Amino acid sequence: MARINEHYRKLTAGYLFPEIARRVRAFAEANPAASIIRLGIGDVTLPLVPAVVEALQRAAAEMGTPGGFRGYAPDQGYEFLLDAIREDDYARRGIEIARDEIFVSDGSKQDGGNIQEIFGTECRIAVTDPVYPVYVDTNVMAGRSGPADAEGRYAGILYLPATEANGFVPDPPAERVDVAYLCTPNNPTGAVATRAQLERWVAWARGCDAVLIFDAAYDAYIQDPALPRSIYEIDGARACAIELRSYSKRAGFTGLRCAYSVVPKALAGATAAGERVALGPLWARRQATKFNGVPYLVQRAAQAVHSPEGRKQTAEQIAYYMENARRLRDGLAAAGFAVFGGVHAPYIWMRVPEGQSSWAFFDELLARAHVVGTPGAGFGPHGEGYFRISAFNDRDKVDEAIGRIRRSFARRPS
Amino acid sequence: MARINEHYRKLTAGYLFPEIARRVRAFAEANPAASIIRLGIGDVTLPLVPAVVEALQRAAAEMGTPGGFRGYAPDQGYEFLLDAIREDDYARRGIEIARDEIFVSDGSKQDGGNIQEIFGTECRIAVTDPVYPVYVDTNVMAGRSGPADAEGRYAGILYLPATEANGFVPDPPAERVDVAYLCTPNNPTGAVATRAQLERWVAWARGCDAVLIFDAAYDAYIQDPALPRSIYEIDGARACAIELRSYSKRAGFTGLRCAYSVVPKALAGATAAGERVALGPLWARRQATKFNGVPYLVQRAAQAVHSPEGRKQTAEQIAYYMENARRLRDGLAAAGFAVFGGVHAPYIWMRVPEGQSSWAFFDELLARAHVVGTPGAGFGPHGEGYFRISAFNDRDKVDEAIGRIRRSFARRPS
Repeated sequence: MARINEHYRKLTAGYLFPEIARRVRAFAEANPAASIIRLGIGDVTLPLVPAVVEALQRAAAEMGTPGGFRGYAPDQGYEFLLDAIREDDYARRGIEIARDEIFVSDGSKQDGGNIQEIFGTECRIAVTDPVYPVYVDTNVMAGRSGPADAEGRYAGILYLPATEANGFVPDPPAERVDVAYLCTPNNPTGAVATRAQLERWVAWARGCDAVLIFDAAYDAYIQDPALPRSIYEIDGARACAIELRSYSKRAGFTGLRCAYSVVPKALAGATAAGERVALGPLWARRQATKFNGVPYLVQRAAQAVHSPEGRKQTAEQIAYYMENARRLRDGLAAAGFAVFGGVHAPYIWMRVPEGQSSWAFFDELLARAHVVGTPGAGFGPHGEGYFRISAFNDRDKVDEAIGRIRRSFARRPS
Repeated sequence: MARINEHYRKLTAGYLFPEIARRVRAFAEANPAASIIRLGIGDVTLPLVPAVVEALQRAAAEMGTPGGFRGYAPDQGYEFLLDAIREDDYARRGIEIARDEIFVSDGSKQDGGNIQEIFGTECRIAVTDPVYPVYVDTNVMAGRSGPADAEGRYAGILYLPATEANGFVPDPPAERVDVAYLCTPNNPTGAVATRAQLERWVAWARGCDAVLIFDAAYDAYIQDPALPRSIYEIDGARACAIELRSYSKRAGFTGLRCAYSVVPKALAGATAAGERVALGPLWARRQATKFNGVPYLVQRAAQAVHSPEGRKQTAEQIAYYMENARRLRDGLAAAGFAVFGGVHAPYIWMRVPEGQSSWAFFDELLARAHVVGTPGAGFGPHGEGYFRISAFNDRDKVDEAIGRIRRSFARRPS
């Protein structure tokens, strides 16, 4: 009988969001009258902006004509999109990125999950704790860890605690690792790294020849123009960092699927024999073999995000979500909870009541306020005691959720 | 310095199609006046059918409205598409497939490349030779092979020669393997397996508890209604076979990206300790962690393929391509070449002139007729001496290509 990949059996639980969906479904079935407000999974709620819809419809019409039809997309993306990215996301900030350093994909989740395939299984991985589960799970599935301990920490993976003490932005590892994942603005904590912090990360990676995987999926939510939005704003990052960027949260593409990764030419790994090998061609080979491009019409839609109308329309949506975040922060604080994040990110990270587990708070919040959030423990052991609330929802639902939470929880010790 | 995945360095060459693109680009630059006809990469050329374009436009409009917007798609696909698949592709043929046995994806290339991740790296793999390169390359990249020999055969992988003697449909392996890939109608040979042949494969897989990965990406091209179009038409296949199906060639979705895999509940692998483990949940976990669903509007487009108009319109496109295939077969035969396939598949597999390598013939065909095909050697050692011609092109280009080939090559010994 064919042997399975037994690394999968180390995974401590189902992927977080299906587990939340399961609990919500069970609650909804038991309480059919409850009007549930979902601030759990970080999914956008506003419709696609007009510039994007128009681009989709134009491209769909084109695809129905003999002259406009397009089959397989170029491996790394259409030039029109690569050039829009180079101009709008990089040149505008003084960063020069070549076309063949950009890899258009169907999501940062995919890129964040697949990028580990180009590294050896002996590589030691560092992640923040709490962390977006995909980085960890995909490394576990690939065999880069031992079993999990009672708290869900996998042996062999280095966890960097993100705590109130360090403002949820850990310093780089003090011990030897080969690949580190850093997401800022952070999912789930909503914390954002300062320039000085990113400089320390880049200096660390350069100092020990490690690779930094910088996930900037939420950069559009940064409000302070002084904060870096790309790791390549930091000197030296081109020699040590892969950057992941996405249209999902920036332009409501969670149901449309477009993102990209940047692997600078200077970036290299090594063979066991010590030979330097550029990472870009390895990633290109991975993508050419296991991926087949983003649909033409989705790439046209992504291009439209970079147009003047697209930029204006998506900026309005982000302002809307950030006003939600402001209200959630204020409302949760007024209900007595300690709140973090939510200023340069669409996530509020709140402390759950003393002595309660984050899954117990999940169940209680659902039962009492009919509000869905995400238990911090789902993001790692140091997430225990915290809870993620997402600002992605309609304003009236956000206000209603705040009202319910205040009525259900106010004056409880936090 | 981070260690790279050194298995990548075993890969003998760039992925086949980028290499073809490179040679064609070089030829075009050196011969700017040449009108090149591409019968190489198997990419469709007819525009999307009206039913599909309408579905895309309707869904794009929906996504621009507060009530119609959809974010993340359900992990395994929208129910409307799962049900269309169950009804049109299975129930219609007397096969019962459950919703949760179907996994909608962005391509059979992806499914064929990713499915190996759920198996242990110790699994022994069998492929036909020639073979669609993705099956082999992804297993090499995952470490399931030793280095390649001078002919490009990787140590540890079992190759089943597809030859003129066996009509290009090899018998199942005589020695022990854990996972076998079988593509029929076949890419690249255009051969199709009969019911009796598929029965032998299923009996073999059941007899030795192996998993058969059945790639039916080209089933829409089968002309004889007596030939099976799904492996599940064979008794017992639900206990041993994973099936891959795609909209790419069936409905011109190469630039739109939709496919699906079927992993029946009965299918299992084993741990080292001998415990049986169902494969479906492993694949579900893989997809939930490393994939994020197919765009809503693409799933609506796929659903439209199953509508009465969609079925009629796509059937007309397939008939058009198959008339191309008929003309190519006749034309190549008239030019003195031995031809195979092209009757239940959009590919003609032709023998190259005695003593010539298939890459040499590629270069000669490009230089003399300005026609691009695919060298058989790119699909494996037993592809050497053969050449794949694709029927995907406009009729006038196909006729023009046939004329040029006849003028350039007629009366040469084949």
